[in-house]
Amino acid sequence: MNQQHTSKVDVLIIGAGPSGLMLATWMARMGVKTRIVDRRFDRLNSGQADGLQSRTFEIFDSLGFGQDIWREANHMLEIRFWNPDENQNLYRSDRMVDTKPGLSRFQQATLHQARIEDYLLKYIERYSDIAVEYGMMPESLEVEPGLVEGDDYPISVVLRSSPKPDPESRVPGNDTNVPNGLHRSNLTADVTDTLLRDAQNTQGTSTEKVLAKYVVGCDGAHSWTRRQIGCVMEGDHTDFVWGVLDIIPITDFPDIRYRCAIHSASGSMMVIPREDKYVRLYIQVTEVDENGKAIDRFKITPDNLILAANKILSPYKLSYKHCHWWTAYGIGQRVGSKFDLHNRVFLAGDAVHTHSPKAGQGMNISMHDSRSTTFNLGWKLASVVKGWANRSLLETYSSERGQIARELIEFDQKFSRLFSGRPATDIMDKEGIDLKTFKEVFEKGNLFSSGCNVDYAASLIVAKPSLAAANGLPSVVGKQSLAPNIIMGKRIPSHKVLNQADARPWHLQELLPSNGTWRLLVFAGDLLDQTQFARLSAVADRLSSPDSFINRYKPKEDGKMASLFEILTIHSSPYEKVELLSLPDVFHPYSQEYGWDYNKVYVDDNSYHEGHGQAYHNYGIDPKRGCAIILRPDQYVSWIGELEDVNSMNDFFNGIFRSS
Amino acid sequence: MNQQHTSKVDVLIIGAGPSGLMLATWMARMGVKTRIVDRRFDRLNSGQADGLQSRTFEIFDSLGFGQDIWREANHMLEIRFWNPDENQNLYRSDRMVDTKPGLSRFQQATLHQARIEDYLLKYIERYSDIAVEYGMMPESLEVEPGLVEGDDYPISVVLRSSPKPDPESRVPGNDTNVPNGLHRSNLTADVTDTLLRDAQNTQGTSTEKVLAKYVVGCDGAHSWTRRQIGCVMEGDHTDFVWGVLDIIPITDFPDIRYRCAIHSASGSMMVIPREDKYVRLYIQVTEVDENGKAIDRFKITPDNLILAANKILSPYKLSYKHCHWWTAYGIGQRVGSKFDLHNRVFLAGDAVHTHSPKAGQGMNISMHDSRSTTFNLGWKLASVVKGWANRSLLETYSSERGQIARELIEFDQKFSRLFSGRPATDIMDKEGIDLKTFKEVFEKGNLFSSGCNVDYAASLIVAKPSLAAANGLPSVVGKQSLAPNIIMGKRIPSHKVLNQADARPWHLQELLPSNGTWRLLVFAGDLLDQTQFARLSAVADRLSSPDSFINRYKPKEDGKMASLFEILTIHSSPYEKVELLSLPDVFHPYSQEYGWDYNKVYVDDNSYHEGHGQAYHNYGIDPKRGCAIILRPDQYVSWIGELEDVNSMNDFFNGIFRSS
Repeated sequence: MNQQHTSKVDVLIIGAGPSGLMLATWMARMGVKTRIVDRRFDRLNSGQADGLQSRTFEIFDSLGFGQDIWREANHMLEIRFWNPDENQNLYRSDRMVDTKPGLSRFQQATLHQARIEDYLLKYIERYSDIAVEYGMMPESLEVEPGLVEGDDYPISVVLRSSPKPDPESRVPGNDTNVPNGLHRSNLTADVTDTLLRDAQNTQGTSTEKVLAKYVVGCDGAHSWTRRQIGCVMEGDHTDFVWGVLDIIPITDFPDIRYRCAIHSASGSMMVIPREDKYVRLYIQVTEVDENGKAIDRFKITPDNLILAANKILSPYKLSYKHCHWWTAYGIGQRVGSKFDLHNRVFLAGDAVHTHSPKAGQGMNISMHDSRSTTFNLGWKLASVVKGWANRSLLETYSSERGQIARELIEFDQKFSRLFSGRPATDIMDKEGIDLKTFKEVFEKGNLFSSGCNVDYAASLIVAKPSLAAANGLPSVVGKQSLAPNIIMGKRIPSHKVLNQADARPWHLQELLPSNGTWRLLVFAGDLLDQTQFARLSAVADRLSSPDSFINRYKPKEDGKMASLFEILTIHSSPYEKVELLSLPDVFHPYSQEYGWDYNKVYVDDNSYHEGHGQAYHNYGIDPKRGCAIILRPDQYVSWIGELEDVNSMNDFFNGIFRSS
Repeated sequence: MNQQHTSKVDVLIIGAGPSGLMLATWMARMGVKTRIVDRRFDRLNSGQADGLQSRTFEIFDSLGFGQDIWREANHMLEIRFWNPDENQNLYRSDRMVDTKPGLSRFQQATLHQARIEDYLLKYIERYSDIAVEYGMMPESLEVEPGLVEGDDYPISVVLRSSPKPDPESRVPGNDTNVPNGLHRSNLTADVTDTLLRDAQNTQGTSTEKVLAKYVVGCDGAHSWTRRQIGCVMEGDHTDFVWGVLDIIPITDFPDIRYRCAIHSASGSMMVIPREDKYVRLYIQVTEVDENGKAIDRFKITPDNLILAANKILSPYKLSYKHCHWWTAYGIGQRVGSKFDLHNRVFLAGDAVHTHSPKAGQGMNISMHDSRSTTFNLGWKLASVVKGWANRSLLETYSSERGQIARELIEFDQKFSRLFSGRPATDIMDKEGIDLKTFKEVFEKGNLFSSGCNVDYAASLIVAKPSLAAANGLPSVVGKQSLAPNIIMGKRIPSHKVLNQADARPWHLQELLPSNGTWRLLVFAGDLLDQTQFARLSAVADRLSSPDSFINRYKPKEDGKMASLFEILTIHSSPYEKVELLSLPDVFHPYSQEYGWDYNKVYVDDNSYHEGHGQAYHNYGIDPKRGCAIILRPDQYVSWIGELEDVNSMNDFFNGIFRSS
């Protein structure tokens, strides 16, 4: 055996799927020394559709490519419901809006998974030298418990280069030339150990020992990392099997470009239109064959799926000449018994929380969630690795994402019971109250899966009142009533404001890129009111003082993060009556190289071409007195207070950051 | 001397600046065998700002990257006017909107010229194997008059590889390390012949003889091609000199991020804010020095320009640490005596039509025009080269662009007289009627320079009534009254419509990509009205008949252009009451490979998230009866008629296309 090479890294990410890549974006942007490995030899399943929720687009927009994906994606505007009438004839029974108007500036859409990966990889490349190392699989992981609270490298992982050819191509089930996802399906056994054993017995593979400060397992439903930390998946499993086909449909079914929920005497089906003429079909597969035997998953083929679809859609016909991808899943929802080990090894995405796609709804929740776990973890991990924040910040990952996982699963179970495995004449087959109930649940599900309604509980970083006076809660509690529509624990909704310096309208969220910065939003109120201006000036003095959080927690400049904090001011006076330079300097900082900063002060006023954002009104903030708001780097609301509550702001940040 | 290599090409473009690249986009998209050469060795002046007008964005959007540039660009919302009061103290005298609301969905903006080139080059690469050949200059051009009406190669051009180093770096005037544009300025003599002589005397350069069907000179203000065809620039020259500085300003001048027109006792200045903290300053330079002698252009340096700016802005201070680019120009407007030779050699962009930038306004007109000439020429040239259209189509290039050039120059002269070379206490220095006049002209100039108001005269391809019954006019005249706000001769304004197949809203212009296709817009009226539906069905039959233009002019498929024509239908009934597949097939064609076409039928209805486009109302079209509209490949309106006027449509196209 060769001498084993040993190396050190701050963060090791295992798995370069959607959640691993999302985690890497934070590491890249915040300048954390990171490696990301994947046992695959390249990117697979590029034909697969990705369901993109409103909040997912907001996140992508905060990374700078939300609008690009939005333009490429297929937008879903309306859902159409089809049901059998009393003679078992399929008819269009109802329709409803897909994404609730006003929820977000983005609506639910679909796009090729490979395109999303392209954007994530381009982002990572732009901000760092992190590159995915393909063909690398972990074979051991050890944590030294005595080191977990220190600044050393408590984790040791041995990585082995995987033998070619691509191990996944050896998983049986792919009997057509069309790429499929069966090897990742929960209908398929976990082959990780076999692959590892094969690798160990293959000449030419080599190993490397990596000492890491943190390890994140983003290695999917069959997660290897999960087993190493003794996490067990808990939840229910069903025998309901759904097939998935990504095809260009040739059909006389009239609603093929709408998202459809179809129930017929022959089973259920969902239609999810995609970009470039494609449509994703979720097709219910009878769980027993004609002889009453449990279905053999090898019998699930594109041909059988399209046959089933035709039965469901009858009298309409459906065929195709192009198929990108297909798979099949058993319905089930499971969540990991724990999300971390010592807050040093974390599980994220499907590794800790799986939803089998059920009728598109499930798919979307799952897709979103897979990325949103690491979007939650990334900035926290980077802040701790950089030495800015206390390690206790990391505890909020498990608490926040555990809470959401449980909520999602609870809802999902309710929803899937409404949708799967009922006899043909089920609740959805009759008109009246039952169809109405179904629609209501569907609406609720849409809101849920949009990701915009996530509401984190009180914690170190969410200063809302809590019944439990638990450890780690912030020393301060914010004043929700000052901005009733900016909810502590939720992401801040977006309304348009104008830049004071040039009258250009911006969606507030566009001013909140995911760069690791905490923001103090100063809703300055009416600047033309002398009393109010005096308040603002007094606040400026206190924010500028040496013991203010702004001056107390200053990371050493390392080129990536100039500042932990940014102050954005939004006032309510007419912009043409206000001179930017008359505001205190702290609200528009001066640089010897670049002059005054013209991108910090905004105004709630009418724009020339894009209407009036009515931000104060929509947020419920007093346009005279305003208020102050602390936003986390991920756009979630931490705290709300009066402009004068600078002590509270200081206390809040003292609970999170380490003085240097 | 080596044996001279001879090659053949359909179109040879001389010059790879903005107008040459724009021409190449059409050639790339429509599959024309094309070469594009440039005497420079690489792309220069990347720090230079580019002024982007509303229509320029619409054009970019029709190429698929308008939204990208829109997001990167600095948007200009408001113009601020500064003037001296009676004590000669500078004060903010007025403000006005920059782009008239409602004119376009894009407003005036600025961006780095290199970024625009990036997008054009990427587009060309995406659709073709055309690549700019740098370091190649033409040394002779001959046209065989006997061949100009045939299908042979009547033009012969000898190209010579330019000697390194870059010839332009040898042009004196660059005495700082900052890139400047003096070598292209009209303050500098034309060095083309010197460069050519040098090249001919340099060992290692080689020549190549290119036989071409068409040659387009996009070789700028000092155009070599222009001289070869005996075109002379006509127009006026002035002694007014303006300097241009692209800097990151450090200043207490309060409106530095607004577009400003500043007149003070010490001269005039324009502020054009750019992206990434930059600002472009147009600074009036005294045309005589302290001793009354004409200014020496070598005395124009960034240092002297910033001094002049400080005098004008006093008491405000202005300095900088970063300068991207600078130049100086003499004010003047000139247009070529002819635009083509035998409709075989064409001049485009600055080669035939120069506006020296005057106070930003001129810059923008010029910038826009430089590209819009080749945007007008490209699709015509491609259609003729491909053998689809008669050569007479090419005559409309000179007539249309000649008309616009003359109109622009006329306006420009008026405008610049208002702005340059007056004594300090000029018309703009006093309040009241004179400032008002200035503002009115400014407004008119903005509308003019937006490019959205261009109104081409009657011709083969604009079927509007004409006083002159000249040759080449169409055999039909459209009925303007059927759609009073879709003006024949102008580009079609854009309003939102929904896709019938999925309820997604689109701006009408988004459905009109620049791919060489002519469009028949069928405003189908109220489909729920049986009489109207019967009308539509009858029209469908006639459009589907073998002698309809659609079936008569079908280019042989060559992979690039599947069809010369596209029918887009926009009806006025509620979308949920209409079944797409109930419409006649010609409005949603069927493909054995892809099924029905879901992107041809639209509806003027309310959207869930983006309001109601009110297209029928805004266009002034009868929502019951509708009308039919023919659009050119460049979004200009050719003809308007009743749905039944299929004979007129046929006649119109018979005048343009060659039967095969």
